[in-house]
Amino acid sequence: MSVEADIINRFFKKKTSAPLGIGDDAALINKNTKEYWALSQDTLNVNTHFLPSTPALDLGWKALAVNVSDIYAMGGQPKYALVSIAINKHNMPWLEDFSRGLHQCAKKYGVEIIGGDTTRGQTSISITIIGSVEKKKVLKRSGAKLHDDIWITGQIGLAALGLDCLKKKITLSEAAEKLAIKCLYKPSPTDIQSLQKYQLFHSAIDISDGVIADLSHILTSSNLSANIFCAQLPVSAWIKKEKAFDYALYGGDDYQLILTAPVKNRNRIKKLAAQKRLKITHVGQVTNEKKMMVFDPNGKPMKIVNKGFKHFVK
Amino acid sequence: MSVEADIINRFFKKKTSAPLGIGDDAALINKNTKEYWALSQDTLNVNTHFLPSTPALDLGWKALAVNVSDIYAMGGQPKYALVSIAINKHNMPWLEDFSRGLHQCAKKYGVEIIGGDTTRGQTSISITIIGSVEKKKVLKRSGAKLHDDIWITGQIGLAALGLDCLKKKITLSEAAEKLAIKCLYKPSPTDIQSLQKYQLFHSAIDISDGVIADLSHILTSSNLSANIFCAQLPVSAWIKKEKAFDYALYGGDDYQLILTAPVKNRNRIKKLAAQKRLKITHVGQVTNEKKMMVFDPNGKPMKIVNKGFKHFVK
Repeated sequence: MSVEADIINRFFKKKTSAPLGIGDDAALINKNTKEYWALSQDTLNVNTHFLPSTPALDLGWKALAVNVSDIYAMGGQPKYALVSIAINKHNMPWLEDFSRGLHQCAKKYGVEIIGGDTTRGQTSISITIIGSVEKKKVLKRSGAKLHDDIWITGQIGLAALGLDCLKKKITLSEAAEKLAIKCLYKPSPTDIQSLQKYQLFHSAIDISDGVIADLSHILTSSNLSANIFCAQLPVSAWIKKEKAFDYALYGGDDYQLILTAPVKNRNRIKKLAAQKRLKITHVGQVTNEKKMMVFDPNGKPMKIVNKGFKHFVK
Repeated sequence: MSVEADIINRFFKKKTSAPLGIGDDAALINKNTKEYWALSQDTLNVNTHFLPSTPALDLGWKALAVNVSDIYAMGGQPKYALVSIAINKHNMPWLEDFSRGLHQCAKKYGVEIIGGDTTRGQTSISITIIGSVEKKKVLKRSGAKLHDDIWITGQIGLAALGLDCLKKKITLSEAAEKLAIKCLYKPSPTDIQSLQKYQLFHSAIDISDGVIADLSHILTSSNLSANIFCAQLPVSAWIKKEKAFDYALYGGDDYQLILTAPVKNRNRIKKLAAQKRLKITHVGQVTNEKKMMVFDPNGKPMKIVNKGFKHFVK
């Protein structure tokens, strides 16, 4: 268990009368007989979640996008957001750029900013997002079933590649580097409502800490395990060539979705996704083995290390 | 206009389809035909909103109480909260104390913690509170009417006195000092639903930045002005004796309510408040004069200075 999850379980998780409390991508409260409001709050702190050099426009986009991702992970539609910004000095050009990025993202994903505050402090953005979810279509982490297919939206590992490019740890082609840095700075969460309207999936989570760490949350909540096949992972040509699957398995900040769905829905998911031009890839199976297994492109089991992004690790 | 309000208006306020967006103590979204969900997010940063020496237990209480106050200011009932905590190091005793204070406050005001996150960063607490409000009883800043009575709940100026005691700027009797510091560390917001169920009030705001600054928000939103009488302000014996009304007029952190109500409701408010043992004091009138007037205990107009607590003032 991550230190963050341990802290939350020890100090903050209590029984609640809400339909869903702490422990998923969003909490659920009642809206009407057919729908919930899903609520999630995510904070980005300078030096922990973003480099001080991050352009304000990109930060405005990303701070909201990571929250949009939480609502998509519940199978919902983002609607409103409260935006709390702490900054050290009263920097109008920075705020103007930040708000432009924020509003660009809000427009793209249909979110309206309805509240929040600005305070003085070390740069930090805390956004609460509110989305609507149909009760029948809600996707919880605990919903995975034995033998489910495991699916991943979009491409993964790119944001972590982008971070290593910025840190000059690796060199990619100009185009590949540009794309990776764009994925790091301006994540594009994937809306799967056009598929989930047919109730094709059982569970979902968004990938903020890497496939291993985030899939583990689904598996722990569902009391199951999984096999993941690296050969099937939707990763860049460079990751495939270098067999650098760790970027996908342990790299954070992708904000794509991991979903599970019954095998019988596999063809329908593929067909609908093609129709909707939605990239979604079958990467493994839910099992009832003792532990998660990851297989390299030759079919050999890989060692799983516990190195998903962690706060509080000194 | 405060710098904070200016920033919010310039960069973040947009037209919204929500029943109430940026610019009040809480935003409103639809719950059902009779009720709204009211949502508010408030952030407390170390050195800006609390001293580094603040006991974690008190901080846990206060971080939630200031949000409870926002829901009471809308005439609503707090229900749920999302709690986001940034701390620099993984300090379990601190977190334990913080969560104890948070849960004590949650229990007292009937709030359930349903989500949030913990991150690494300079100490900061950002809480989103969700409350239910009956549509008929909602109190907006813009609801004040000409000639309304102005009411204040509880006692004001105590938290600012407490801060000056801690800073050794003033010396009070031991009992008075203890009470003032308690008010600073553990504010007790006042629930006026037992009166507002009869729809007695027109508007409300909570006092976080002092009477002048917060009443100004009501007056600006309602396009009106006011007369305030210091002799009527619910302040401590020390403030009265020293004529130190600035603590009440400009001191922050009281988390009591300013309300306005038609004169015809005055006796009913007094009678009901006495029955419910709820301290509420009539302190002035809403006017349509050019500017707000504050009168000293001798009836002389006082100079109003623009020194409510401000972020970003360097």
